[in-house]
Amino acid sequence: MTWEAHMRTALELAANGPATGVNPRVGCVIVADDGRVLSEGWHRGVGTPHAEVDALSRLPEGGARGATAVVTLEPCNHWGHTGPCSEALITAGVARVVYAVADPGQHSSGGADRLREAGVEVVPGVLADEVEHFLDDWLTAARLGRPHITVKWAASLDGRTAAADGTSRWITGAAARQRVHEQREASDAIVVGTGTVLTDDPSLTARGDAGELMGTQPTPVVVGTRAVPNDAAVFRHPNPVIFEGTHDLEAVVADLHQRGFRRVYVEGGPTLATAFVAAGLVDEYAIYVAPTLLGGPQHAIGDIGVTTIAEQRRLRILDIERLGQDLYIRAVPAAEVPAPQVPAPEVPAAEPGTAPAKES
Amino acid sequence: MTWEAHMRTALELAANGPATGVNPRVGCVIVADDGRVLSEGWHRGVGTPHAEVDALSRLPEGGARGATAVVTLEPCNHWGHTGPCSEALITAGVARVVYAVADPGQHSSGGADRLREAGVEVVPGVLADEVEHFLDDWLTAARLGRPHITVKWAASLDGRTAAADGTSRWITGAAARQRVHEQREASDAIVVGTGTVLTDDPSLTARGDAGELMGTQPTPVVVGTRAVPNDAAVFRHPNPVIFEGTHDLEAVVADLHQRGFRRVYVEGGPTLATAFVAAGLVDEYAIYVAPTLLGGPQHAIGDIGVTTIAEQRRLRILDIERLGQDLYIRAVPAAEVPAPQVPAPEVPAAEPGTAPAKES
Ligand SMILES: NC(=O)c1ccc[n+]([C@@H]2O[C@H](COP(=O)([O-])OP(=O)(O)OC[C@H]3O[C@@H](n4cnc5c(N)ncnc54)[C@H](OP(=O)(O)O)[C@@H]3O)[C@@H](O)[C@H]2O)c1
Ligand SMILES: NC(=O)c1ccc[n+]([C@@H]2O[C@H](COP(=O)([O-])OP(=O)(O)OC[C@H]3O[C@@H](n4cnc5c(N)ncnc54)[C@H](OP(=O)(O)O)[C@@H]3O)[C@@H](O)[C@H]2O)c1
Repeated sequence: MTWEAHMRTALELAANGPATGVNPRVGCVIVADDGRVLSEGWHRGVGTPHAEVDALSRLPEGGARGATAVVTLEPCNHWGHTGPCSEALITAGVARVVYAVADPGQHSSGGADRLREAGVEVVPGVLADEVEHFLDDWLTAARLGRPHITVKWAASLDGRTAAADGTSRWITGAAARQRVHEQREASDAIVVGTGTVLTDDPSLTARGDAGELMGTQPTPVVVGTRAVPNDAAVFRHPNPVIFEGTHDLEAVVADLHQRGFRRVYVEGGPTLATAFVAAGLVDEYAIYVAPTLLGGPQHAIGDIGVTTIAEQRRLRILDIERLGQDLYIRAVPAAEVPAPQVPAPEVPAAEPGTAPAKES
Repeated sequence: MTWEAHMRTALELAANGPATGVNPRVGCVIVADDGRVLSEGWHRGVGTPHAEVDALSRLPEGGARGATAVVTLEPCNHWGHTGPCSEALITAGVARVVYAVADPGQHSSGGADRLREAGVEVVPGVLADEVEHFLDDWLTAARLGRPHITVKWAASLDGRTAAADGTSRWITGAAARQRVHEQREASDAIVVGTGTVLTDDPSLTARGDAGELMGTQPTPVVVGTRAVPNDAAVFRHPNPVIFEGTHDLEAVVADLHQRGFRRVYVEGGPTLATAFVAAGLVDEYAIYVAPTLLGGPQHAIGDIGVTTIAEQRRLRILDIERLGQDLYIRAVPAAEVPAPQVPAPEVPAAEPGTAPAKES
């Protein structure tokens, strides 16, 4: 088996842990030189052993000597409820530690360095994308001190959300709409602007195929200063609606964090989605593209402050899925604004314009 | 083997024919009851036997009795240089005819009906998409009396072609740009508006990886009334540039047809691409999507006359390909504007708005 395969096992083990705890869900596999799995472990929540220690504890004295620990998160390096996992691994005599994602904690990071100092081989970044995705809300909280924010929109192939007169009924098909309901269910809060509430009067519930309420409901959050009529559908949501009477999205996000929301799903409309993009407050994009052209003035995304191409907001597409006739594109902000890609050599004489040559 | 598999063979045989002839390239496989291939044939151009007759001619008298003819195009029903293929198949005693695409010819169609009258089983539509694509220029000429038109654009995930100030250098990567050059090479004409020529001064040549000219070059066509400077790069194109000093795209297309162009590649800019879409003069869409967001006023597609959602221009996505970090989406106009898809049942109490409920 490859490290990727063992890491996948570790990820499955991690999923046994509690999804909503303060600590991350971590899994660990101890693998012998010959590829045999010696032991497995996972973290069961605050006050219980970390995954590495859990896995080591299932081995006899010396049983991990010379073995490899495959663990989803960089082993911690701090004395909390338990001792540092880096020390436990060193003491157990493991020869190699393979991990997916670096520990973002201020106090707990440094485990990889400590292991290397002690002569343990360290292989980082194995299956990093999958583990990042699995831990996204916890990682965002640890790195940025705020909830993980997904911005969703549904648009035509030319980036419109509606025809000129605002009509948009069923641009996307049933499968895409159902996926949106699943994403609502998986979120703690679902955020819209007052514009959407005043225009569409949405219920903001997560519903199944037959329109029935799903088991878990996100809390509806309405952002904006305009009043919402007393008989708006959001008031009949199973969870009490939160009004954020401001345009300051940093403040909105801080408030949601403070209320304990870890996973926030911004469903629009275009004005609010654009504001989240412009503010750099997007961890994941859920873009549904319907195979249609609309043209006209109703853009999914408006002015995000990109005045020249160097300011473009590069994304990294993680997944493309066909849902019925529609596309679902899952993307994240690119790690950094990349340098312009190396252009293919040009025939100099053929491109003498003073304007920068483009796709021509 | 399935009919699809035999049709794929027939399509490969068809590709032996001359790509630029007046007649379509057609292939035929004669298959015995037990699935054995008895004979193969293809059409070699005007004045030579049609594919079915070619395949039958390789069999001894009576050799096709009770067999199935798998042919890429509906057998013709008219007396041209050769007799109708429908009659030849009936005379040969075939029991079944499987075909991909109906014959669009005014004089040659009706073969399927004639076969059915004679008691031959007819199975149409097998591998229709592939064969449509293979014959697209010939079919468009036969059905609409004009060249096959592909409209290409490259845009961000939010449908922009450039940042607010017009800069767009390398939105898409090298692989996508190279594919565009291949599509240019496969086209007879490459069409742009005066705006693109005046802004970008493109060479409009098909070039390889290293910037070298490819073997076949499309003829550059510039549409619009403004004058182009004498030193524009298009004047150094290996083929003399054609100027169409009009906004009447029907007239432009008729002129290109008259000049014998079968495959036209419209590369923009946005104004011209939008005009082609609005005029309904698009047979295929080549949409390159870069994983970036730009916002702002530079739209790939502007107003196409869709004022309300019932007028949307539905497309059918045939292919999605990842080219480097970019997406290439190949689409065609949907056969007809579809009735709105059946909505998933709604919870009535949850959607009391008077406005049509949308994705909420
Ligand atoms: N295609 C989709 O995915 C999708 C999703 C949802 C909605 N929609 C459509 O979008 C339409 C509504 O569009 P919309 O843009 O008016 O709705 P919106 O984005 O929901 O609401 C806009 C309002 O949000 C408030 N707001 C809060 N923070 C803001 C900020 N930082 N910057 C600017 N405004 C902020 C403002 O309200 P105040 O003026 O009250 O302060 C603003 O007028 C509806 O027709 C709906 O169907 C489409
Ligand atoms: N992203 C891409 O795929 C792509 C591709 C090509 C170009 N571009 C960019 O597009 C920009 C140029 O944009 P553009 O829209 O000005 O260029 P354009 O579409 O090439 O040219 C527009 C001009 O086309 C003429 N025209 C011909 N038929 C027309 C009709 N039926 N309706 C309207 N106009 C018609 C008009 O010229 P007259 O006024 O002379 O009559 C009009 O001003 C450049 O910056 C270029 O880089 C992008």
